[in-house]
Amino acid sequence: MRIGIVGYGNLGRGVESAIRQNADMELVAVFTRRSPESVKIRTEGVPVLHTDEALKMKDLIDVMILCGGSAKDLPEQTPAFAEHFNVIDSFDTHANIPAHFDRVNAAAKAGGKVAVISVGWDPGLFSLNRMYAGAILPDGRDYTFWGKGVSQGHSDAIRRIDGVLDARQYTIPVPEALKSVRAGENPELTTRQKHTRECFVVACEGADLARIEREIVTMPNYFADYDTTVHFISMEELRRDHGGIPHGGVVIRSGKTGWDGEHSHIIEYSLKLDSNPEFTSSVLVAYARAAYRLAGEGACGCKTVLDIPPAYLSPRSGEELRAMIL
Amino acid sequence: MRIGIVGYGNLGRGVESAIRQNADMELVAVFTRRSPESVKIRTEGVPVLHTDEALKMKDLIDVMILCGGSAKDLPEQTPAFAEHFNVIDSFDTHANIPAHFDRVNAAAKAGGKVAVISVGWDPGLFSLNRMYAGAILPDGRDYTFWGKGVSQGHSDAIRRIDGVLDARQYTIPVPEALKSVRAGENPELTTRQKHTRECFVVACEGADLARIEREIVTMPNYFADYDTTVHFISMEELRRDHGGIPHGGVVIRSGKTGWDGEHSHIIEYSLKLDSNPEFTSSVLVAYARAAYRLAGEGACGCKTVLDIPPAYLSPRSGEELRAMIL
Repeated sequence: MRIGIVGYGNLGRGVESAIRQNADMELVAVFTRRSPESVKIRTEGVPVLHTDEALKMKDLIDVMILCGGSAKDLPEQTPAFAEHFNVIDSFDTHANIPAHFDRVNAAAKAGGKVAVISVGWDPGLFSLNRMYAGAILPDGRDYTFWGKGVSQGHSDAIRRIDGVLDARQYTIPVPEALKSVRAGENPELTTRQKHTRECFVVACEGADLARIEREIVTMPNYFADYDTTVHFISMEELRRDHGGIPHGGVVIRSGKTGWDGEHSHIIEYSLKLDSNPEFTSSVLVAYARAAYRLAGEGACGCKTVLDIPPAYLSPRSGEELRAMIL
Repeated sequence: MRIGIVGYGNLGRGVESAIRQNADMELVAVFTRRSPESVKIRTEGVPVLHTDEALKMKDLIDVMILCGGSAKDLPEQTPAFAEHFNVIDSFDTHANIPAHFDRVNAAAKAGGKVAVISVGWDPGLFSLNRMYAGAILPDGRDYTFWGKGVSQGHSDAIRRIDGVLDARQYTIPVPEALKSVRAGENPELTTRQKHTRECFVVACEGADLARIEREIVTMPNYFADYDTTVHFISMEELRRDHGGIPHGGVVIRSGKTGWDGEHSHIIEYSLKLDSNPEFTSSVLVAYARAAYRLAGEGACGCKTVLDIPPAYLSPRSGEELRAMIL
């Protein structure tokens, strides 16, 4: 399976590493909108090309993994590439998924290609678990908690405050809320009761720390609805203690069965990730295998993780899976 | 969707209850090998018929859910029914799944029907999670823990000992083992290090309790390889405190990503079930929906949970799922 990568940020680098863990895959080229000479990749002998040159590689690439951002890159890139390549993206703006799906679907059908969108862990693996658990326990309730982990969007929002040099924001589930859900108590939880936010901020020398803290904790949408803690630290401490991009979370379904709903059940799926982008990349790469197999069967159009048979993610045959994993 | 149930034990009763939770399903008939007059079901107006009469209902039943045991019933029943009906079974003798698959596949293909075998939680949901997690983190390791829960087979083994009136056996994961796996330590674990077994035994009056205990803890295959605790209790206590059939367990994959495997990740899936048979029944019913949809598309032959797109389990459309769950 010959793979191309579009975009060489954290996600693109993660895909490059993940390809190395899968013997049936080979990285063919990395495409960038930057000047290709300025981009150094790790895989020896693989070219870095400008995105404009991708079409020339049409027949040499089985699946193109699109590693751009959901805000600006993917809404344009995924439909454009889906007309010429089988593609995978990690589009994660939940509210815009239906519109993105329609545009990608039209493009992929026009080109006779397979596109799999919104691949990752949420949307992605968490969606799968909400789907399975909800179908199995229709009389029940879903809870999704995120963290403990770094939220890039919230960290960026702090960095835009006057007097802030750098910042890292952690989203943390409230332990009491998790405990209540796990106990099958089916609590009604407000935003504030589900997650807290912890911020590590490097301020400019002489900045008004009280004002920065106030601007953070009262920021609408981002922080105002949460209990937020702010710690001012040095740039050295930020680099030393907060350099990683960990994340994770939990999806829980609590439901009832029995003639009178007399029995309770808890289905829980959790992720504890040292590197959010590398894990997301690993999911993208597994779904690249599925896209390749679907395309080989003559499928076309846009799919999501909900549409794809689990076995298509594995390099193993049906016989092997039944004997070893079932 | 018109459903038939074959076999009316714990599982069959669970399926009957689960059908009531799914508005798109209707129970059409319950089939039994006992005398039908002796079987009272809960759903009003639904007939109980002898298994021999099932074929007459061929055109009135969309999916037949087979609720017999894996040891004696399903190896015969599933191939026999799969020639005439779309069927679901919960065949759970892991080692015999490949042979069972082949026989059911031949029968279902001959009849142009869809059969889904080994549906439940292990095999079933646990298999799905081993499959997804293994495909996403190829450089990693799987751990499956069962319990805390009642093992029917082990309880039966104790009941066969001379001087035992009744017994209940709980399988319990060793907390230290779970903790080590969750910490990403990738331990090598022996059978004894993974699970303990706790037995509640009602002995005949005057029975030699020391001998019974010795026979339990030294029983090959069942108990000899485990740390086993035996408690002698009264029949009253057994009924009062051990009447339920709870179960559950955990599937964990611990894996590495990054250019040099420098980042660790933990994927964990866990079930905490008040009623093992009712939960299994709920999984069977969700897969009945999938079988019906596959059959409607002209599919035939034997499938497992690994072959079935997740969305087929849900009564919701692709549009709804993308908007609500993805």
